[in-house]
Amino acid sequence: MIRFNSDYTEGARPEILKLLEETNYQQTDGYGTDEWCAKARDLIREACGCPEAAVHFLVGGTQTNATVIAAVLRPYEGAISADTGHINVHETGAVEHTGHKVLALPSKDGKISAEQVKACLEEHFASPAFEHTVRPGICYISYPTEYGTIYTKKELEDLHSVCRQYGIPLFVDGARLGYGLACSECDITLKDLAQLCDIFYIGGTKVGALFGEAVVIPDPDLLPTFRYMIKQGGGMLAKGRLLGIQFAALFTDDLYMRISKDAIEQSDRIRKALNELGFKIYIDSPTNQQFFVLTREQYDEITKEFALDLNCTVEGGVVARACTSWATRPENVDRFIEALKRMR
Amino acid sequence: MIRFNSDYTEGARPEILKLLEETNYQQTDGYGTDEWCAKARDLIREACGCPEAAVHFLVGGTQTNATVIAAVLRPYEGAISADTGHINVHETGAVEHTGHKVLALPSKDGKISAEQVKACLEEHFASPAFEHTVRPGICYISYPTEYGTIYTKKELEDLHSVCRQYGIPLFVDGARLGYGLACSECDITLKDLAQLCDIFYIGGTKVGALFGEAVVIPDPDLLPTFRYMIKQGGGMLAKGRLLGIQFAALFTDDLYMRISKDAIEQSDRIRKALNELGFKIYIDSPTNQQFFVLTREQYDEITKEFALDLNCTVEGGVVARACTSWATRPENVDRFIEALKRMR
Amino acid sequence: MIRFNSDYTEGARPEILKLLEETNYQQTDGYGTDEWCAKARDLIREACGCPEAAVHFLVGGTQTNATVIAAVLRPYEGAISADTGHINVHETGAVEHTGHKVLALPSKDGKISAEQVKACLEEHFASPAFEHTVRPGICYISYPTEYGTIYTKKELEDLHSVCRQYGIPLFVDGARLGYGLACSECDITLKDLAQLCDIFYIGGTKVGALFGEAVVIPDPDLLPTFRYMIKQGGGMLAKGRLLGIQFAALFTDDLYMRISKDAIEQSDRIRKALNELGFKIYIDSPTNQQFFVLTREQYDEITKEFALDLNCTVEGGVVARACTSWATRPENVDRFIEALKRMR
Amino acid sequence: MIRFNSDYTEGARPEILKLLEETNYQQTDGYGTDEWCAKARDLIREACGCPEAAVHFLVGGTQTNATVIAAVLRPYEGAISADTGHINVHETGAVEHTGHKVLALPSKDGKISAEQVKACLEEHFASPAFEHTVRPGICYISYPTEYGTIYTKKELEDLHSVCRQYGIPLFVDGARLGYGLACSECDITLKDLAQLCDIFYIGGTKVGALFGEAVVIPDPDLLPTFRYMIKQGGGMLAKGRLLGIQFAALFTDDLYMRISKDAIEQSDRIRKALNELGFKIYIDSPTNQQFFVLTREQYDEITKEFALDLNCTVEGGVVARACTSWATRPENVDRFIEALKRMR
Repeated sequence: MIRFNSDYTEGARPEILKLLEETNYQQTDGYGTDEWCAKARDLIREACGCPEAAVHFLVGGTQTNATVIAAVLRPYEGAISADTGHINVHETGAVEHTGHKVLALPSKDGKISAEQVKACLEEHFASPAFEHTVRPGICYISYPTEYGTIYTKKELEDLHSVCRQYGIPLFVDGARLGYGLACSECDITLKDLAQLCDIFYIGGTKVGALFGEAVVIPDPDLLPTFRYMIKQGGGMLAKGRLLGIQFAALFTDDLYMRISKDAIEQSDRIRKALNELGFKIYIDSPTNQQFFVLTREQYDEITKEFALDLNCTVEGGVVARACTSWATRPENVDRFIEALKRMR
Repeated sequence: MIRFNSDYTEGARPEILKLLEETNYQQTDGYGTDEWCAKARDLIREACGCPEAAVHFLVGGTQTNATVIAAVLRPYEGAISADTGHINVHETGAVEHTGHKVLALPSKDGKISAEQVKACLEEHFASPAFEHTVRPGICYISYPTEYGTIYTKKELEDLHSVCRQYGIPLFVDGARLGYGLACSECDITLKDLAQLCDIFYIGGTKVGALFGEAVVIPDPDLLPTFRYMIKQGGGMLAKGRLLGIQFAALFTDDLYMRISKDAIEQSDRIRKALNELGFKIYIDSPTNQQFFVLTREQYDEITKEFALDLNCTVEGGVVARACTSWATRPENVDRFIEALKRMR
Repeated sequence: MIRFNSDYTEGARPEILKLLEETNYQQTDGYGTDEWCAKARDLIREACGCPEAAVHFLVGGTQTNATVIAAVLRPYEGAISADTGHINVHETGAVEHTGHKVLALPSKDGKISAEQVKACLEEHFASPAFEHTVRPGICYISYPTEYGTIYTKKELEDLHSVCRQYGIPLFVDGARLGYGLACSECDITLKDLAQLCDIFYIGGTKVGALFGEAVVIPDPDLLPTFRYMIKQGGGMLAKGRLLGIQFAALFTDDLYMRISKDAIEQSDRIRKALNELGFKIYIDSPTNQQFFVLTREQYDEITKEFALDLNCTVEGGVVARACTSWATRPENVDRFIEALKRMR
Repeated sequence: MIRFNSDYTEGARPEILKLLEETNYQQTDGYGTDEWCAKARDLIREACGCPEAAVHFLVGGTQTNATVIAAVLRPYEGAISADTGHINVHETGAVEHTGHKVLALPSKDGKISAEQVKACLEEHFASPAFEHTVRPGICYISYPTEYGTIYTKKELEDLHSVCRQYGIPLFVDGARLGYGLACSECDITLKDLAQLCDIFYIGGTKVGALFGEAVVIPDPDLLPTFRYMIKQGGGMLAKGRLLGIQFAALFTDDLYMRISKDAIEQSDRIRKALNELGFKIYIDSPTNQQFFVLTREQYDEITKEFALDLNCTVEGGVVARACTSWATRPENVDRFIEALKRMR
């Protein structure tokens, strides 16, 4: 079985394992106060062009989303999100567990627009009974989205502008950030992103690390007590150095972007094949996830050999998702494309 | 600087790093549904003598405590704990964050007694206004405790008996479980523990792993939906295999107990030296943590070379904590004992 | 200014004020353990044909909804609701504040169907990744709905049947229950309702009382510890007798249904007038709320004299809501109809 | 049976019932936006000497405490309280339900000192691991306390000074405020109180009203969005006017203080009798609650005729609590004193 069903099917880049081994018997303090975390923070600040940014390391995405959102919101506030957003559908209500409603807006290709966010905010504050409704207190988007799509720079500027107008932060879930920044349609850099939002995170779990997400807060005064939130939320790793070491490796010699490009290269090959072979594309994605329609029979046949994710059912079949990652082997993509060809 | 300030100052046992490397490119499913987790579960079930037990892997202790307690309790229930219990003092209110009060009982050497727990339960149910007070719904203890002490088998039996009488589970925080089971005063085995409580966890973070805690629920029907709780609480690692691999290594060839004994051997050397040198022992601990009184000057002097944890201040000085672990080198203990000698 | 903007613009039925005055100096125990609460419970049990039912008194609707839902759900569970449901839009996220997601389904005329609820439950349990999504744990509907519509007996039977099949309770918000039961299209009785759901409440605030909602749980074993939840949620009135006295008055000599019919009679007059005068009906309601379309100019004009609720904007104008209640004076309805006539 | 077991055994002062009746058919807007609430706010502002204060009306004490505390705190913060404080022992964990730990300090006669609060704050901020512990974010005291005792002006000044130094608000639970201000040992006025703390409430439930607590926030900028919290917490009464009417009556012609003095007069008679008859006083209270020791036999005997609250057991017997209130009849106190005499 060759797996394309997710982008977390392998361990970590060898550089990371090697550094973990080399540093194994170094003695350090815990909870992210060690030298490796300090080094990783500096490397990330440099990569983001934010010498003053606060950088925090957490273990996983659901934890990071819930911790950031709970840190920002007052009890009566909620998080604006695409209805397809990860926090709205795939985190077992982790945000609600912290007491906050997800204010889900209809999405297009996994995205929401500045107009929608503005309307949502306007509606709340225009209502004479606004105290009877949840107040939007943060805007959550993913880059790339759940459907592999990305926002243009202009779209991000517009979203950020609306958020600033209403005084709420724009928070970007970057669980797959590398794959967004490395794709051909991307018109922003990591440095741009740090200007285009208030809080974002650089996903490690899906982009080369064993685990770990690096939260970047360009303005360090925004959440000065965030470490309390991390600890309370169960995200403060005792051996915090493990996160520092991994991100130090990822941000040395541009490793993070290099391995992201590898994944995109392989995904683009699948995308091209799907198009050339005439498969129906469900949502056209320039990043590391491809969504395409198969008949149920095709799906059952191909998944005998290749693990895919069944995203949803549509008329005439199902939507399959194929992911590549930093670990995807070109020869496995060859085989997958061959299998697709056999089905036409 | 040689560190004795905590038992999580190094990485992991080489066996674990080796297995992570060997399995790095294996493709597996996520979230703990892979073969390594299955294997580790089986090894743990065997070690615990519980062929039917549910075994779940989480990342860290605070997360595990909050997730288990929230899984057990109804909203109006609280967790009985020693006032010195980790959940009561060192988790930034993670239990309260899930909505539950910690019902702190006065402790002796970090322990609470069956009589105290019984009195707490009796008082609640005897009160005509019990609905106005928090109902005790779980009893939390640590083995070993925050002060390195352990419960005798008889004490555990009595606690369990009271809990059963009132229908609440006994939950044992085993963040340092190996160091308790491996010490000279211990009169129970892992198999006994599985009979003596309703939920417990086997700490990996402090006992040889990079991170990870294995929750064991001998009666699998007790919390059948626990995986929802793990996910919602941010504890479900995408690459769950990392936990499976680590615990598989720890429970192969008795590694977990062997490295625990190493730590105890070194701690016993420190304990003996402290006694022989006439240092005042704050709380006498048979496990991997030693608590002893130094003058402030002594503390300042010795911590120039050896990192210790400052536990609290007492008349005439401070209580220092020295920890050993699976990674403690005998030659570092030699040096520490020499330094202690120089102070007399 | 004559108010039709809500059904809580006056105080209480004179019978209630009189009984409050007569009993004012009686000395009773607190928190709902007094004789008046006992009497009211018995009267309600009798009216519902449920001699064994648990009956609890709370102060208001938002409080009651959040308390019931939090009492039923486990932390990872959510409440199925119409997207227009009061808990989803008008309670400032009170349900989410207790940690639970509202699983909003698209509604038609304020209602959801058994088919929708079934599909929601099926989808959850059919998903291989169900632990990553919120588990539906209760089904919340209103009778009448936010739009004044009511479910038929058949619809309720079907909803209840699906809920039973999946083991989740059907909970009916009856903030305006009297106005539903008293309307011409209603095909159920209070006794039927007690058979057709698992938990419901009889609204007092909007139907003759100063305040108060009576929660009825036909099977008393369903939530045996509900009083803890009421106390914790801030809903346990110290002078609980005030609720007992009011509901005792409402359930003596059929007062509750008599005053509900008065309100419906006046609402039906408005409904008839709107139809005869050719106003566009937004949603056709047989109960005490009428929703109709006015141009913005018409709305501004008529609200100089009559307070109406502006429900939403539509093409060509706004949707106005006019409510009657137990306190509505026929002469005020006369005037309102005259004003409507003047606008044609 | 004559009841002295609590101070909420009767309904309300006749002035209040009368005003409720007179205004019964006035039509008003809901949720505290009506003219009666506006009037009551003005009367309270005047009585407090705070023309700018925000004044909010809630229904009951537990609700008010939880709502205020949750409004002030960030998720990782807790509420400092006496261990005997109402929020710590008699509210079923309502504060923890909102996610916050109660940081209980040992109390003397129900009180805590500025020194204790300072030490608690200092300890938190001095700890290098403060992020692992709950941060004190509000200081909660009661005036009078659970044991009927009161703070001196000097004690309040000192508490307030420490709170200001650390930037946390001082919150005074005034469920029985009138009885504190009216007692002979009181050295402050309502106007003083408004200067001596940041948030307090004027209890209506126990001092003449049917129900209701008036929260006063002298600096209106402290919690500008508090109405969201009230709504979310279930404390926003639909017919908010009922609270306005009651507090308008209580703050007209000094009714609140007049009836408080009546209660104190009767309590002082009991206090004097207890002393003269040589009963052991458990805690000496100048307000409307008396705590005294009876043998179990004495308690069983006297409670055949007089309902008392059994506060706790002590060596040689039990501590009984006798409360007076605005409704206490002098002739009932006569009888109670006679009964006490018969027991000597």
